[in-house]
Amino acid sequence: MPRVTILTEADLRKIVSLDLDAVACVETAFEALATKAVAMPPILRLDIPEHRGEVDVKTAYVPGIDGFAIKISPGFFDNPRLGLPSVNGMMILLSSTTGMVEALLLDNGYLTDVRTAAAGAVAAKHLSRPESGIAGILGAGVQARLQLKALTLVRPISEARIWARDNDKSRLAARELSEELGIAVTAGRSPEDVVRGADIVVTTTPSPKPILHRDWLEPGQHITAMGSDAEHKNELDPAIVTGADLYVADSVKQTRRLGELHHAIEAGLVSADTPFPELGAVVAGTARGRSSPGSITVADLTGTGVQDTAIATLARDRARLAKAGSNFES
Amino acid sequence: MPRVTILTEADLRKIVSLDLDAVACVETAFEALATKAVAMPPILRLDIPEHRGEVDVKTAYVPGIDGFAIKISPGFFDNPRLGLPSVNGMMILLSSTTGMVEALLLDNGYLTDVRTAAAGAVAAKHLSRPESGIAGILGAGVQARLQLKALTLVRPISEARIWARDNDKSRLAARELSEELGIAVTAGRSPEDVVRGADIVVTTTPSPKPILHRDWLEPGQHITAMGSDAEHKNELDPAIVTGADLYVADSVKQTRRLGELHHAIEAGLVSADTPFPELGAVVAGTARGRSSPGSITVADLTGTGVQDTAIATLARDRARLAKAGSNFES
Repeated sequence: MPRVTILTEADLRKIVSLDLDAVACVETAFEALATKAVAMPPILRLDIPEHRGEVDVKTAYVPGIDGFAIKISPGFFDNPRLGLPSVNGMMILLSSTTGMVEALLLDNGYLTDVRTAAAGAVAAKHLSRPESGIAGILGAGVQARLQLKALTLVRPISEARIWARDNDKSRLAARELSEELGIAVTAGRSPEDVVRGADIVVTTTPSPKPILHRDWLEPGQHITAMGSDAEHKNELDPAIVTGADLYVADSVKQTRRLGELHHAIEAGLVSADTPFPELGAVVAGTARGRSSPGSITVADLTGTGVQDTAIATLARDRARLAKAGSNFES
Repeated sequence: MPRVTILTEADLRKIVSLDLDAVACVETAFEALATKAVAMPPILRLDIPEHRGEVDVKTAYVPGIDGFAIKISPGFFDNPRLGLPSVNGMMILLSSTTGMVEALLLDNGYLTDVRTAAAGAVAAKHLSRPESGIAGILGAGVQARLQLKALTLVRPISEARIWARDNDKSRLAARELSEELGIAVTAGRSPEDVVRGADIVVTTTPSPKPILHRDWLEPGQHITAMGSDAEHKNELDPAIVTGADLYVADSVKQTRRLGELHHAIEAGLVSADTPFPELGAVVAGTARGRSSPGSITVADLTGTGVQDTAIATLARDRARLAKAGSNFES
């Protein structure tokens, strides 16, 4: 009988965290996406309008990685009224060789948080100036915190400013992040205040209209927009997509549909078939990254199945080493 | 923290079997498919050609059922060389109200076997003559056995004949089924021998070319073809689809693409947009079933996500009652 390992969120938090290993596994997955015959079928989506519910199922097979993840991401937007989180979910890890279910990762979205932040680190590592020391973060939620931590793994960040619509939330995040990361983190008075003078800006909000404007940008800045994973979300002034010296997508196919690029296309600033480089190609060296210290670079991240496969196999490998989780004969 | 129940194949075999409850829950699901706003998105499919592997992910939401299943069905055709089954898989049951994962059903395909056989019972109940006493089964695998058992739940079957290409296999199946079901089951010498004189014929093979011919059929017979769940499979002479008095599909959309109907369309016997009734409409009484004792009726079953949702919710309900399985705080 096949053996299946069950890992709960608590198990996973002990063995997987946002560290250089997580960044490296996501970096390798992006490189594979650009250089190997990755299979990433369209998302399966089920809508349950009676309960304002939706479920996305994603998967990706990366040649050379011995497992692949199937991720189930439900979003039920009446849940907060019932005292439940809107978004949760889990991943199933299968063997790429036999299709046997190897592990059930009951992560409630934790691994998605880690792999999403790790992609921010990969983008900063390959696109920002190496000496980048000041970070500006828009948003103060889970990703705002993780994205700042991700930057500190790959760049000598010594100072950060954070802004959110809710000032109390940004002040709390600033205080806690100062302590956790051992750097000076302050709450900015406005988005502009956070962006001016920053070397790297990361936008992490679900905003439906731009919160970052073209004329605030300064030479040498790198911007990562990671808040948009749906058609209606839009963090960047569309003029930034076309006005930057370099625009890089995690998956052009996706950013044309869901990302900041989508809004630049809608605004008529760029045509839908304009080619753009992908992050994996920059990692692999087949597309050019930053060309000069004064360039403005943009990374548009919408989230890809290869990141899930990368983090899920890391979790399985760590669980084996640590003998974590519970085993079932299925 | 949300609670998730894990049920292994051994747990599930104790609490769910092919019985009238399983038939009733699948019957209700078919009725819902015909009468309610069921959401059944296209199958997500991932191919891993390096290992002759494929994975299908199916789901369906049925209004009125408080859970929905996501089924993961891998098929890796080099597995037998490694001493592993080619086909296995599992189901995840989520709440239709909150999207929370409620149960992980590590069934290795067992629940699919049960819901597939239950659909055969639903077809026989609504299409065969009530006094049908003789069954003819083509194939001698798991489904051949379960389909015969399914017929005995809904019709007064007192005699059965079974045929498979491998005579030893059909003789063994005949002997074991006689004992299990307490009726006379014999191994037929040929498909024709099994079909002649039978009241109900069920085809359960993965045959790529017809094994049941039009001129063997007799007035009053009902035929269920359940072996085809892929484009290349074809059990019935295409002339049967068009020559029968009544052809009923589990899902016309699917049988046009995967079922016996697909081959009748390919053969030019019927056009691709010809309307046909669905089993759920016959159950609901909105389409007519058998019109006379002498009619020849055909059910073309390819398998639907609503059956998975039906059997998975039955399994969860039974598990709650029996306090079966292991619980995890995810």
